[in-house]
Order: sequence, then structure tokens, then C-alpha cells
Amino acid sequence: MAMSDIVLIPYRDMEREFHRILLKYHFSPAKAEECAHVFTENSLDGVLTHGVNRFSRFIRYVKQGLVRVDAEPVLSHRVGSIEQWDGCLGPGPLNALRCTGRAMELAREHGMGCVALSNTNHWMRGGYYGWKAAKAGFAFIGWTNTTSNMPAWGATDPRLGNNPLVLGFPNGETPVVLDMAMSQFSYGTVELHDRRNQPLPMPGGFDAHGALTSDASAILDSRRLLPAGYWKGSGLALLLDLLAAALSGGLPTVEISKREQEYGLSQVFVACDISQLGNHTRIAALVSSVLDNLHHSNPDAAGQVLYPGEGVTRARVENLSRGIPVDASIWQEVLSL
Amino acid sequence: MAMSDIVLIPYRDMEREFHRILLKYHFSPAKAEECAHVFTENSLDGVLTHGVNRFSRFIRYVKQGLVRVDAEPVLSHRVGSIEQWDGCLGPGPLNALRCTGRAMELAREHGMGCVALSNTNHWMRGGYYGWKAAKAGFAFIGWTNTTSNMPAWGATDPRLGNNPLVLGFPNGETPVVLDMAMSQFSYGTVELHDRRNQPLPMPGGFDAHGALTSDASAILDSRRLLPAGYWKGSGLALLLDLLAAALSGGLPTVEISKREQEYGLSQVFVACDISQLGNHTRIAALVSSVLDNLHHSNPDAAGQVLYPGEGVTRARVENLSRGIPVDASIWQEVLSL
Repeated sequence: MAMSDIVLIPYRDMEREFHRILLKYHFSPAKAEECAHVFTENSLDGVLTHGVNRFSRFIRYVKQGLVRVDAEPVLSHRVGSIEQWDGCLGPGPLNALRCTGRAMELAREHGMGCVALSNTNHWMRGGYYGWKAAKAGFAFIGWTNTTSNMPAWGATDPRLGNNPLVLGFPNGETPVVLDMAMSQFSYGTVELHDRRNQPLPMPGGFDAHGALTSDASAILDSRRLLPAGYWKGSGLALLLDLLAAALSGGLPTVEISKREQEYGLSQVFVACDISQLGNHTRIAALVSSVLDNLHHSNPDAAGQVLYPGEGVTRARVENLSRGIPVDASIWQEVLSL
Repeated sequence: MAMSDIVLIPYRDMEREFHRILLKYHFSPAKAEECAHVFTENSLDGVLTHGVNRFSRFIRYVKQGLVRVDAEPVLSHRVGSIEQWDGCLGPGPLNALRCTGRAMELAREHGMGCVALSNTNHWMRGGYYGWKAAKAGFAFIGWTNTTSNMPAWGATDPRLGNNPLVLGFPNGETPVVLDMAMSQFSYGTVELHDRRNQPLPMPGGFDAHGALTSDASAILDSRRLLPAGYWKGSGLALLLDLLAAALSGGLPTVEISKREQEYGLSQVFVACDISQLGNHTRIAALVSSVLDNLHHSNPDAAGQVLYPGEGVTRARVENLSRGIPVDASIWQEVLSL
């Protein structure tokens, strides 16, 4: 794709535009602001696939009533440090933010806190909640299920979700945050490469003949995304789905997949208050030594080995100063909403 | 390797032999029994690399005083549903069993319980603890760090551990248990293929020229194990190490790697008492529907798609009836201890 097809959108312009559209679709001013912020931050952080690139689809779900703009999550059951909440099909990012916050409150009280959320919607970028918790000083583990979009290892038909998993750990303004789908590439990434006619950097699925391929379009056609680490990503996706549905009392992937659209997901948010651990005064030094050691790796090519989340910090700085690079056609679609 | 180089050892014979040797090396009768049981069960389940194949090395560590046969884990700090324990360099499997049990007790009390263990030794097969918890009715998440044995993605020198992660979920006598190292293959698996002169089924690391290879011997030479899912396994290994060391107050991989041998590891055991959840009466049906759906996958070759742990159940049945298949040289070494 030629550079002329990319437009650079200043942060404030993007956020203002999202805010305008969300108000138009009946979000309250406070919720419109919070939701616009999440979509803009995700885009700023370089995760376009779960930011601006997905905004139009989010609005379509709102129009279809699959995302209920006024719904608030409701506590359905509590046992010690675990709470089960019903997301009431509210906006995924707002439900996820609420539950991340509640998991942190539970962690303050119990050392560790877990909120399991049923009946919610796509949280967009899971890393957002990992960053939120880690910057507030909490270790974080969270995951979501999805509709089926990936065959199990050894299968040809998609019966697993790619169920993104997020782990976060505090490190001042530059926390360590891993946000990984169980497919080698997220569906959004495959779609982006397809739209830009670019091959994936590594094989990311199978073609119609069952051969591994880096051709994004062939993968979208076969619907055979490759699980990350073959049988490992496949197994982990199954367990994360089972845990999300069982802990929340919500739907597993097999039930979500019976719906025409992806809604009514199950998610888990676990926070740990590391400031209450016996060794809490030594944790910052521990993190430094672990990250320093990684940075001293011998790179196999030019450049430096980065920790998860470090690239995000770099993208933020660049995108804040020059604007957020967006496919022109995608931005046009947003402006037309 | 010819079949003549494999001997079939009956379960009771293997357990009796381990028990004899552990008593000889000053384990108390109760601990010798418990420890022999873990090594035998791991072998029975088909995980030879972390059963009989590793027993001689375990005894060597005992002789060197790296594994302290009498040491008991000690509680060092408690905050709500999290406990920090010091493993006092006791036998890894016994420490891990104790902490799995304690995590389940905490889960009974708080819904979810977490035990973080410092200063322990190799737990052998993490899946053992996942099976233990799942068969007792608990959802389980546990992981360990290791000495450095895997380069980060994009690096050539091994600075990460392959830090196995275990997730378990109850399903009667056949629980769903995933036990995965963050390398595409565990070190033990690569060593086994090297010893048997067999190629790995998929590329599992890099050769001396930096090319991906299935040649186990070339990988052991280069010391470049491949992270599962490339950057994903690499990132997850880093986060699991950070979490294990921070939560337990123990050593991260970078510190363990300064020692000549691998000892003084950090581990985490999280259990969740699903019988106290609001939806607990519907969980068994949920698990059945998720596993049934997986089983209905279209396989890409002959055979059926299995869930994590299902192959273990099959191996158990076969090995119980015909004996546990062990490399003859390995069994001879055990007998000579």
C-alpha cells in the first residue's frame, strides 16, 4: 500500500471524532468520553486493529442492539476474593474497565482478586486493561473468549476461539504487558495484511490445500488460522475458554458461535496487589534486573530485544508527535458515521 | 532406536525401585513413598522425560546437597488469599505437592487461593499438580521458572527459562490438563530425540547457522531452543518468570542462571474452588459440551482431535497393562543407583 493511502490523525482529532459519533448513538456523555478514550489510546499505541480499524464495526453492533449502550454490569455472585458479574451486553471496553477496577479493589482487600464477567462484548484490545492495572501497581492476568475462529491443532474446521490472554506487571510508566491471541496472528492482523496486500511475517494459517502459508487472503478463505505454537496455542485456547465460561457462568465459544454475530462473551480479570507482599520493597529492583538481562541479549539481527509492551511505549511517543497513521479508507468510513 | 532397546517396566516394580533408592539416600519412609509415587506416575502417564528419565539426575542433586531431603516449606508471609512460602531447597515434587494442597485450602476459604513458593527445586512434571487439583474439583493455574535455556525471540543467547505453565480443569477422572513449556519442545523432549537419533516432529530450535531445524542434536549444540509461537512464547516466558519471582520473593531466571546447577526456583500455584460459584451445578454440563464440540472437529488426518490431558489418560491405560516403556540404558542406570 502506498504511503499516500495512510493519513496521520492527531490524537485529539481522533478522540473528538469518536466522541461525536458515540454521542450520536446515544452513549451518555461520560460513557462516550470513556469509550472514545479507549479506542483512541489503542490506536495511539499502534494497535489499530483493535482501535480505529474496529470502530465502525463497534458502531454497527450498537445500531444492531448487540451492544447495549446504557447497560451496566451487575454483581451476580460473590465468594471470597472472586466475584461473578453479568455484563448485560454493555459496551465491551466499559464492562472490562469496570471489572479491571473491581479486581483491583478485591486485590487491595484480599491480596488477589478475581472478577469473572459473563454476557459482555468484545473488549477490543485486552492489553489496555493490563496497562491500566500495571500502571496502578497491580500484577494482572486477564483473558476473554471469542467466537470460533481457529481450528484446534489437527483439525480443519474452526471450533476454538483465539481467546486473547493478557499478563501485566508494574514497571513505572513503562510496564511489562503481554497481549497475545492464541492464534499466531490475531484475526485483525490477518485482515490488515490482506487489505494491504502484504504477506504475514511468518506462516499464520493454512491454505485451501492444507499447507502452512503467510498469504493472509488464503488464510481468510480457508478460515484456518494457525494456533501459536501449534498444539500449545490450541490447548491453551481451549482451557482459557473453559475457565472463562465456568468462572463467569457465561457462554463458552461453542455457544457464542451459534449466534450470527459475536456477542455475549465471557472474560476473567485477576489482579494481585504486590505492594502487600513480604518482599514488596525489592520488587522494583527485581523487575529492573530481569529487563536489563533481556536487553543484554545478543540480537540475531540489527536492533535490540524488547520486552512485551516496550514497543507500545515507542509507538505512543512517535504517534503522539506525528499523528496516528490510519488507512485513509478506514478514516473516511469513521468520518462518515 | 530398535524396540529391543526399550524395556517394559511394571508400575509396581518401578515404584518399588524408586522407593528403595530414595530410602538409601535418606528420605524418610513417608517422603520416599510420596516422591517415588510422583516419579512413577509421571512415567506411567507417558511423560518419561520428567519421570524415570530424570530420576538419576534428581538423585545426583540429592547427593550434591542441592536437593535437601529433610527440608520442609515454611510460610514466610500471608496477605488474604495469597501465601508466600520458602521451599528451603527441599525436594521439588514434595514442595510442589504441599503448595498445591495449600492453594486448595485457601481456595476453600477465599474462593481462590494462591501460594507462591521461593527457593524450591525442579517440580519434574507440572501437570502432576494440575491433575491433583483438577481431580479434587479445583480449577488450577500453576507455573515455574527455570534456569536460562532459551533465547528471547530475536536473540541468540539463552537468557529466558522455558518456564512451564499448567492449567487444569475438573472433568471427573479425566480432567482437562495442559502442561506446556514455553519452548516449542521441552529440553527433555529434545534430549530424548537426540538420544534416539529421531528428528523432532516440527522445527524446535536453530542450528549453528541460525536456521530453524528439527535436528535435536543441532539444537542442543546451538543452545537455541525455539519459543513456542515465536515472540509469544518468549514474551510469556518473561512474564511468568517475573510473576513467579515477584509473587514468591524468590529468584528470577537471571539469578538462577548464575549457579552452576539449576536449583532455587520460584513457582506459583493458584486454585479456584468452582463448587462455590453461583453456576456450580451447571459446570459439568458446560465441560461436556465444550469437549464434545472439540471432539466433533474434522481431523486433518486419520484419528480424532484430543483435549489436553486426554492422551495422558490413554497412555496410563496402556502402560498400566503392558508396563511402562523405558530406554534400557536409562533403566539400567536407575537399577545401579
